[in-house]
Amino acid sequence: MSTCPHPFDEAIALRPEPPNRWHGRTSEAYWNMVSPYGGVTAAVMMRAMLDHSERRGSPLSFTLNFLAPIDAGEFVVETELVRANRSSQHWAIRLAQHGKVLALAIAICAQRRATWGQVEAACPEVPPAAQCPVAPPRKATGFLQRYEFRIVRGKPFAENADSLSHVWVADNPPRPLDFASLTALCDSFLPRIFLRRPDFVPIGTVSINIYFHCGEDALARQGAAPLLAVAQAQAFSDGHFDHHGHVWSSDGSLLATTQQLVWYKE
Amino acid sequence: MSTCPHPFDEAIALRPEPPNRWHGRTSEAYWNMVSPYGGVTAAVMMRAMLDHSERRGSPLSFTLNFLAPIDAGEFVVETELVRANRSSQHWAIRLAQHGKVLALAIAICAQRRATWGQVEAACPEVPPAAQCPVAPPRKATGFLQRYEFRIVRGKPFAENADSLSHVWVADNPPRPLDFASLTALCDSFLPRIFLRRPDFVPIGTVSINIYFHCGEDALARQGAAPLLAVAQAQAFSDGHFDHHGHVWSSDGSLLATTQQLVWYKE
Repeated sequence: MSTCPHPFDEAIALRPEPPNRWHGRTSEAYWNMVSPYGGVTAAVMMRAMLDHSERRGSPLSFTLNFLAPIDAGEFVVETELVRANRSSQHWAIRLAQHGKVLALAIAICAQRRATWGQVEAACPEVPPAAQCPVAPPRKATGFLQRYEFRIVRGKPFAENADSLSHVWVADNPPRPLDFASLTALCDSFLPRIFLRRPDFVPIGTVSINIYFHCGEDALARQGAAPLLAVAQAQAFSDGHFDHHGHVWSSDGSLLATTQQLVWYKE
Repeated sequence: MSTCPHPFDEAIALRPEPPNRWHGRTSEAYWNMVSPYGGVTAAVMMRAMLDHSERRGSPLSFTLNFLAPIDAGEFVVETELVRANRSSQHWAIRLAQHGKVLALAIAICAQRRATWGQVEAACPEVPPAAQCPVAPPRKATGFLQRYEFRIVRGKPFAENADSLSHVWVADNPPRPLDFASLTALCDSFLPRIFLRRPDFVPIGTVSINIYFHCGEDALARQGAAPLLAVAQAQAFSDGHFDHHGHVWSSDGSLLATTQQLVWYKE
């Protein structure tokens, strides 16, 4: 194994300015068309909260609104612990460049405790990742190189009858799963419009919401193995569409549910 | 028709203190067990944003985290227009009592524009509301009196095989739908744990997320007719469960998709 840091760890590296400011820099390895990949922006803001000396418990809910493109270069993250009690914490997190807020998040951390439980969502029956071919990257540069996608259902850039997709996804190179990388992976879904229509149109995520259904133990069990990402649009209308998604561990445990709202042009 | 204000309008009445503060008072008519009904708190925060002189466009995304119980009495809402461009606005909204933040929201307003569209979620086939009996209120006081529920699927306080419910819901007394009341209605779903287990346990919503798929015109068409509310839990684990829901107009248009995360004790 190399001793070089993983590009994801480089991309979410932050220099703390205690108590509540963090300095980072955009990563070429996770660049998207006009801005960093949204998942790595989400992960950077998650990371700032996770690294905070006052953080207790593990992430439960994370919602991020993207306000405007982030330029290549330095940025500042500000974390605010708005309220805390014995079992949970409420955070507000902002990312800014040159004093302008470009991303706005609210998040909850909580102590997990053993209770009656039941998973009602159903994990689709799919072949194991090892039996599924890796899709060639859709682009030659940028963040798509940083994920390995194995598409089980949902042909990209085609007029599919629905937008439901089943995809095995893993960091490339492999990296043991943690809450920052799981956050980023929740934004790795193909924009649903590209599963309904053959042509490229400009799109941009405006809001992403993640509920975490796992603790550190489940992430450790998963390690660097591929995750099964399932998503489907609910509606495309008036310039925006949403999707609802599930992220499953390789042994079929529900790790996260996620929604996002995406702007599209045509 | 009476000239008295509707109790919902009384509950979400705000006295503006320009430019960004709003003063309100909790409503006995929408009281829940230890705090106001979460839907009316969400509606109050939505209302403050909607009433702001700088607000442009209609609500697109709204996420609210509940930090701590709100006491009966006065509260203050603070609205912040964090960023705006020609087509969209990003807001942060906080509700506080005695200087303590108790609810924290981020929201997006946007101009709706005609584009290619497709609704992929399926509206369940159910009898019209008029053919479904009104359920007797589960409690004799509080906010449950303020909604009329007609349960088509999902028996409350029973060990159902799943938590999927189909319910016609309307304001009581009837009130023409607007974005504030639609926001409130998105919190009117029976907590999913009560569709899986027969016994009452303490619960509390910690986060709610709403994507609006409609403009003012669709709300005007709906008027005061019952909405079809559909929801199902994804997972119950370690003291929290989530649900994913759809709100349909009486003629089968998707008005909103919504998620929430709920704390439970046992």
